[in-house]
Parts: sequence; C-alpha cells; structure tokens
Amino acid sequence: MIQTRLTERFQIKHPVVCAPMGFVAGGALAAAVSAAGGLGIVGGGYAGTAAGEPDLERELNVAKSGTFGVGFIAWALESAPGMLTRALQHSPSCVFLSFGDPRIFAREIHAAGAALICQIQSLSQIGMALEAGAAAVVAQGTEAGGHGGARSTLAFVPEVADHLKRHSPETLLLAAGGIGDGRGLAAALMLGADGVVVGTRFWASSEALTPKSHTDKAVKATGDSTIRTKALDALRGMPWPKEYSFRFLRNRLMDEWDGRDEEAFRGFGVLAARYAQARAENDLETVAVVCGEIVGLVEDRPPASQIVHSIVTQAAGLLRNGAALKFS
Amino acid sequence: MIQTRLTERFQIKHPVVCAPMGFVAGGALAAAVSAAGGLGIVGGGYAGTAAGEPDLERELNVAKSGTFGVGFIAWALESAPGMLTRALQHSPSCVFLSFGDPRIFAREIHAAGAALICQIQSLSQIGMALEAGAAAVVAQGTEAGGHGGARSTLAFVPEVADHLKRHSPETLLLAAGGIGDGRGLAAALMLGADGVVVGTRFWASSEALTPKSHTDKAVKATGDSTIRTKALDALRGMPWPKEYSFRFLRNRLMDEWDGRDEEAFRGFGVLAARYAQARAENDLETVAVVCGEIVGLVEDRPPASQIVHSIVTQAAGLLRNGAALKFS
Repeated sequence: MIQTRLTERFQIKHPVVCAPMGFVAGGALAAAVSAAGGLGIVGGGYAGTAAGEPDLERELNVAKSGTFGVGFIAWALESAPGMLTRALQHSPSCVFLSFGDPRIFAREIHAAGAALICQIQSLSQIGMALEAGAAAVVAQGTEAGGHGGARSTLAFVPEVADHLKRHSPETLLLAAGGIGDGRGLAAALMLGADGVVVGTRFWASSEALTPKSHTDKAVKATGDSTIRTKALDALRGMPWPKEYSFRFLRNRLMDEWDGRDEEAFRGFGVLAARYAQARAENDLETVAVVCGEIVGLVEDRPPASQIVHSIVTQAAGLLRNGAALKFS
Repeated sequence: MIQTRLTERFQIKHPVVCAPMGFVAGGALAAAVSAAGGLGIVGGGYAGTAAGEPDLERELNVAKSGTFGVGFIAWALESAPGMLTRALQHSPSCVFLSFGDPRIFAREIHAAGAALICQIQSLSQIGMALEAGAAAVVAQGTEAGGHGGARSTLAFVPEVADHLKRHSPETLLLAAGGIGDGRGLAAALMLGADGVVVGTRFWASSEALTPKSHTDKAVKATGDSTIRTKALDALRGMPWPKEYSFRFLRNRLMDEWDGRDEEAFRGFGVLAARYAQARAENDLETVAVVCGEIVGLVEDRPPASQIVHSIVTQAAGLLRNGAALKFS
C-alpha cells in the first residue's frame, strides 16, 4: 500500500481508482478493483440513453459486495436524472461526474451521503467542480482513451494542484490519462496528485466487459496507434458538446476522415446506420476500439487484482529508488 | 545536483537540458544554462534558411565560454548542410537533431567527436535514431511548445524506455514537453528518463532572445490558452512535413482557422505576406507566441541559473518526500 490523502479519506488501501468507463466498467470490474484495495467505479455512461448500454442497476447489484462508486457522463445524465436517483439507492461511496456541469446534481449526491468526484479537462472547468463541492477533482489529460479534452496530464496536473492549493486546499486531486503502471502512479504523485484514475489498463482486465476482439487488437498496438478526433461522434450522430473529442485505435474509417472535422459536423449522423451495423458485425475497421495512448504498455488481459498490485508494487519501488539518487 | 546516467556521461551537474529553441536559445542562454550546471544548446533552427534567424556563428561564439551543444531542424538542415560543418568547427559537445532523418548527418557528427541527441515524436521514429548512433533519445510529448507531434510525454516516455531497455540499453533517454519545474523533473525520472529537456521555462528567462512582449503575454496565460495546429505553417508557407504541428498561444488568427487544416493546406502560403508584416508590427493577434502548455506555470522571467537551481532543488525535495510516504 501507498498511503495518501486519497486512501485516508476514502478508506482504501491503494491510491488507484478504476475509471468509470461506460460499456466496460461493470459491477464485476468495480468489485474486483475494490476487493484488491483500490476504488472501483461502475460506469453509468450515458445513463441508459445510448443504444446497447449494460443495465446499470444489474451492474450495481453485482458491485455491491464492497465499496464501489458510480460514474456518469454529466451532459447525458441531464436528460435521464432519474438514473442518478436510482443509482444512489444502491449507496455508492462516490459519484464520479465528467463532461458537463456537476452543480445540477450536487445537492442530491451530497444528501445521499456520497462523495462527489468531478473530472475536468481544462482549468476553466475547475470553478464548477469546486462550486459543486467536489471532494476530489480529477485532472484528465488528452492521452486518455475515450472522451476527453486537449490538456496533457503532465502539464495539467501541477497547474490544477497550484490552483487547489490557493483556492481549495482540502480538495483532493487525482490524475487521469496516460497512467498504466507504477511508473505513471509514481510520476503522478510527484506532480502533486493524491492518486490516479486508471482506464485503459483496467479496460484490458479479465473482469471488464470489453469484447475480447478489442483487447486482442490492442495488445498488438503501440501508443502511436491511437487517434483523438471529433469526427466519429459527429458521423455516428452522438451529440457530444464540441469541446470534447474521442480517442481510440486508428482504423480504416478514421484514415478516411482524419482532419475532416468540419465536414463531419456538416454530415452529422450520416454514418449512424453504417456504424450500428458495423457494431453488430464487430467490424473493427469501422467500430472504435476505445483505449488511450498507454495501450503501448498493454500486452495482456490479467485479472484486475493483479493490475492493482503490480501498479502499487512498482510505484513503491520507484519511489524508494528515487530517494536513493545521489543528491547534493 | 541529482546524479543520473545523463550527468555522468555528459559531465554536467544537473540532468536539465535547455531545448535548442530556434530564434530563442542563443549563445547567452546556452552559456547561462551550462554555467549553472545544466546543458545549454544553441538553437540552430532552420540552419539559416528561414527569414529573421539569428546569426548562428555569432551565437556559437557567445556560447563558447563553456560546454554547449547546437541543435537543428533536420529537414531544414538537409538544404543547408554546410551549416552543420561550420557549427562543428566550434566544437559543440553535442548536436541535437529533431524533425527529420538524423542518419544523413550522423557520420559527420560522430567524426567531429560530438554526441548525437535525437528527438523523436513517435515510437516509429526510434529506429532511425538508433541507426544514427544516438547517445540519447529525447521523447518529446505534444504538450511541448513549438513544433511537435501527437504523443503525450507521460505515456510516451515509459514506452520508449521499454523499447530502449530491450533494444539499446546504453542509449540515454530524455523527456521533453510539459516539464517546467521540479515536479516535472521528478515525474520524468519516475517514468524512466535520465533527464529532461526544458523549453518554455527557459524561453521565459532573462537570457533568451524571446521578445519581451511575448513573455508579457504568456505570464498572464493559463495552460488552457495554447493550441496545436498545422494550419499556421501552411498559411504562412513553411514547408513542414505533414506529421508535425505547431503549438503556441491561441490568438485571433487561430480562432479563425481552428479545425480548418485541409483548407489551410489548399491555401498554402496565402498568408505569408500578412504574417511577415504582422511580425514586423509585432501584432500578436496574428503572430504566434510560441510556448507550451506548461506556460500555465510561468509567472516571471528570471535568469536561467535561477531556473536550473529551482527545478533541481524542488525535484530533490519531492524525491526525498516520495520515499517518506507510508508503504507496506
């Protein structure tokens, strides 16, 4: 274990949080991460408003063996707020909101006794998170898989740390994006984070809901293989706010659409039917295999408990060695 | 001092290299960084082929008081290779090449007894660097100011570290992009780097050739304010290879051209005259103020020696504290 303010406040053993990845982080993954001493969060995604989402209440029941949280895409939750109410009845220890205004949901979350974790993609969003009474702010870098913004973790985390130190020193800081092993955890702690949110590494764990064909493709990829683009959401007709983009493994569809964002927005939804069909056929030259740049470090699909332990053990070793450098 | 393989091999005190920023890192900055115990590198930029570049030989003469290196944009150096020959006559300790094929110049550099440092922006470029006999590879993340690629430092550095461990363990690894203080240095060491290349923080040092109006604008900016785009080079008619993009402070011109890369390439050079005029008039709503995301941490323009010492002191403190975390 590595003790930080995060482990103390959330009463967990390791400062490792599993990202609430929609379609991926079900109850089994959340339960496995928490059982291993981290914090597992069930991915509530689009709050049931998108096609093919796992049943959230079923997943929350699976997670219930121990500590767990639940996460939502905030702009999507606005059109299905009842899903938050139902999720809170399962007594999650925290609610993790990203991609939208958390203030709308803050009162209900606090009243239910859950801690609010707000993920931000730019410094300009931190005011909303603090107004919402976030117990922790997650600074998510652009290297993350899935939806995200333009800031990079290495420069973003210390800037958020400085802001919190001046304006809200009790608020915890987590780093997300580009963290897949103990090197990333140790680096994040040096940058001023109290812990890390890990996505891609758990996306490729045995408990994740990720299709096997996706991780089979990913283990062969280097980190050069991902692309961040706004074109795909436009083409498939997902109404994401324009400040967010989507990172996944480059494929044939994206070779065609690279650099054509404006054209894609003009043709909003034009590929919705083709995309749905490709998903049914599992055609990975059209469908996104959603992972971050750290996929270059992913070579297997082990149990989540093994991932937690290896991240923490490696980080502890590095932190001990770091102090053994010759200083003067 | 923090001793690493970099400090041992390059016989410097601190594992801090000043990036060879064209138009910015002249002889005075290189000399100041080296005198402070880091490694200063004079920015040879476009090797004299671009308008308004400082006279390289004059700058090399200024740097000559101690250890110094020289850096070039490799694709531009191809059209003015005599500039490398002249630079080598000044006995630089190293030649730092980026953005192109270093193999073309490797033999001449090795024959002159200078160490070759190759900066890469994707894992796919590492083969060229190793074939060229690089003493050190610099993994440059997209958060860097100026020209760069799409990988992020936090995920890129450990992936390059793993590659070197398997294929060329003697080659040193430096991290570049997003490193502006001791937190960044400590984090980079955790990721497996032997040292760091710092640009933006030295860009805002008293010895840099940076116009004062540029750093005056930058100290007010947060890290949210930069943009990475291919549009500007196309519009001003700079023939950069298509895999590289350019990061600087967003301004009115870029608000107009955001997301219109393809259109900009079709209009290659269309704004060359307007851009030259804006530069003469120092109109910063058109001209790029070239800095990286870490600009959010830059609040002053101190002497380079102060920057070196504060980075190293802060990093040493963090590394000591990191080992003081409670493990078990």
